[in-house]
Amino acid sequence: MNFVDLIIKKRNRQELTADEINFFIHGVTKKSIPDYQISAMLMAICFNSLTERETADLTTAMTHSGNVLDLSCIDGIKVDKHSTGGVADTTTLILAPLTASLGLPVIKMSGRGLGHTGGTLDKLESIPGFNVNIEMHKAIEQVNNNHIVIMGQTNELAPADKYLYALRDVTGTVESMPLIASSIMSKKLAGGADGIVLDVKWGKGAFMKNIEDAKALAREMIKLGKNLSKKVVALITNMDEPLGMNIGNSVEVIEAIEILKGHRNGALKDVSLALGAEMLVMGGIAENPETALALLEENIRNKKGLYKFAELISLQGGIPAVIDNYSLFPQRMCKSALISEEDGYIQEIDALLIGHAASVTGAGRKTIDDPIDYGAGIMLKKRVGDKVSRGEILARVFAENNEKCEAANQIIKQAIKIGSEKPEKKPLIYEIIR
Amino acid sequence: MNFVDLIIKKRNRQELTADEINFFIHGVTKKSIPDYQISAMLMAICFNSLTERETADLTTAMTHSGNVLDLSCIDGIKVDKHSTGGVADTTTLILAPLTASLGLPVIKMSGRGLGHTGGTLDKLESIPGFNVNIEMHKAIEQVNNNHIVIMGQTNELAPADKYLYALRDVTGTVESMPLIASSIMSKKLAGGADGIVLDVKWGKGAFMKNIEDAKALAREMIKLGKNLSKKVVALITNMDEPLGMNIGNSVEVIEAIEILKGHRNGALKDVSLALGAEMLVMGGIAENPETALALLEENIRNKKGLYKFAELISLQGGIPAVIDNYSLFPQRMCKSALISEEDGYIQEIDALLIGHAASVTGAGRKTIDDPIDYGAGIMLKKRVGDKVSRGEILARVFAENNEKCEAANQIIKQAIKIGSEKPEKKPLIYEIIR
Repeated sequence: MNFVDLIIKKRNRQELTADEINFFIHGVTKKSIPDYQISAMLMAICFNSLTERETADLTTAMTHSGNVLDLSCIDGIKVDKHSTGGVADTTTLILAPLTASLGLPVIKMSGRGLGHTGGTLDKLESIPGFNVNIEMHKAIEQVNNNHIVIMGQTNELAPADKYLYALRDVTGTVESMPLIASSIMSKKLAGGADGIVLDVKWGKGAFMKNIEDAKALAREMIKLGKNLSKKVVALITNMDEPLGMNIGNSVEVIEAIEILKGHRNGALKDVSLALGAEMLVMGGIAENPETALALLEENIRNKKGLYKFAELISLQGGIPAVIDNYSLFPQRMCKSALISEEDGYIQEIDALLIGHAASVTGAGRKTIDDPIDYGAGIMLKKRVGDKVSRGEILARVFAENNEKCEAANQIIKQAIKIGSEKPEKKPLIYEIIR
Repeated sequence: MNFVDLIIKKRNRQELTADEINFFIHGVTKKSIPDYQISAMLMAICFNSLTERETADLTTAMTHSGNVLDLSCIDGIKVDKHSTGGVADTTTLILAPLTASLGLPVIKMSGRGLGHTGGTLDKLESIPGFNVNIEMHKAIEQVNNNHIVIMGQTNELAPADKYLYALRDVTGTVESMPLIASSIMSKKLAGGADGIVLDVKWGKGAFMKNIEDAKALAREMIKLGKNLSKKVVALITNMDEPLGMNIGNSVEVIEAIEILKGHRNGALKDVSLALGAEMLVMGGIAENPETALALLEENIRNKKGLYKFAELISLQGGIPAVIDNYSLFPQRMCKSALISEEDGYIQEIDALLIGHAASVTGAGRKTIDDPIDYGAGIMLKKRVGDKVSRGEILARVFAENNEKCEAANQIIKQAIKIGSEKPEKKPLIYEIIR
């Protein structure tokens, strides 16, 4: 097989066979196809797309480009969750202990990522002593005994996807529904998931800027799941303003604890519970989302979710006392408050700018070797639609020095727009596609 | 400037500025843009094309990616000729001495190429002693004194085009009108041409398989010439069957000599003279193509073209006596004849298959280091539409051994189709676009 012929085939809108797609992904994995041919193929796919069959074959090929985890020794249906990414999105830290407290086996492999803040692993590592490097057999033992583990990847999952993604990033070929869908799904399937609940975000702080794209991506992944005989459910959720009120690492863990305590309601809780409910239904724990939601609310009230989180921290070497004593988290001496200069209603809190401000505080990293400042971050005090008076605090900033505080403040100021009329809010959970 | 942004811009159907195109070509020339980004851009161009303005800017940038020859010290208008390539296309060896004998300054830089047979340089080198490596100042002196020189490139002309072409070849991005047009034109303009006469071929043995593509390419190059203030004329000619009767190296030189002697008429002569006529008009030697054609025919009759060829051979170190004694050319001991097994009319002589047969005889090369067998080749004895009787010779083959002769014979047999009805012939020169 000559790869240039396959490029021309795709360029001419012809369907590639399963063998041809396997040849492609094998060549990517073994580095036997040069990058310049791969990128030409990717661009041809961006223009001519892939059929459902091709997308399924591509996903299967990428899933099997490395090890595929065998989770059959864990009892029950293994349900994974994936979010397309946003700002102050700490849903994992809320829904994982809550669903585990209801008996769902939660084996969550998370990443660090290069973003405005750290990834789930970084957030957990802001808990003193917390260890995410767990061997697979120990992780399986922990899930079978305690229903929950949150860990880094032990093996490289779907290496072909990783390679392709890096190339897509520098060749203008990211935006292709089948490529995005197969990238997400291959990683999850390599992780051994039986079913996947997706949080597909749209809005200013999301990868998808408009709702139609988000819905199209969700439908693409649901079709893909169907073709691969995996259950997939997608929530379409808004990401114009940050999902939670806190943006950073330890501050996001604190917000998750506050929600598990039942002290705080709002968008982050609503999305976490909606996702968790779908996971419970998919996992056979609840019959329908309404029952599932009631179970989750109950386990907030009776604190079972909170204690499951404490148990997780304890199991993985952390100090569970952080749950009651937030001063055990890394602290930042420099704080500043952003004060409102006018009366009115919050019209907009631009999630992308807030994320940028968080990275300025030191809460994120640009390269994989950059250190993360666990204690740095932002606490928003208002949400879109809230009334605000001149002199009220809009946000607090935590950073290692005043310069960073001030720089972040300036960006937050641009992000928050105040007007005289109460704005209409967009629905948070726009649609659930099953 | 970040090249990935330019890829995305082109992917989104936006027009690139002249600065952006210069950045692109500068990056190709200096190798500062990685191949995987270049190939992604090329594929985006294949899908979204280039505007007239972009194509002109791309051509100018590629023209100036290396040295641009200054031919101002040669008197007169410098007219170059370019053919999109075919089988048994020896027009240069006929029209160059003929037009030079009428006073047109002919400085022809030719290539070797990887094809079914050698390129113009290889064909000339089949003349014992002929030297194509001529220094530029000597070439200019020769043109000013004798009106003709045929030589290899002294400098690398349009290196960015060369690099892009090699990449296009392995990434399925050859077929793009603006890329093909700018590739051809940048090389010719870097060679110092004031005007260009194009032979755009279509048919079985040509790059363009249908006439509409050939016409579109011709129009693209004429537009491009207009935008760059260069005269361009294009002939659309058929290449279903080989243009000449002889296919190889020395055998093609022999056919050119036969035409210059006035011994042979036919397609090769017709196309050579039609192209030569346009060159004479463009060069200000003749007022219109009809007068020019008459002048060319006259210089066949009075042998001035033939003697100009002898003069060229002599000037460049060859033995001009080859003109009268073909046995001075390299000879091949093994010959074979393909005999017709039926009566009828020649329906088809597939140029591509004949070319393939010629390469089997040893007349071409696959890599630039392969030796060429100058004496090997094919002499067709019939053309499409000719009557043929059982037992008549269809073709003769020359090669170094019987195995090669036999292998070539088998291919020629497939290439020649005989039927009972006299076929309708397609027009040879379909259109002249000025």
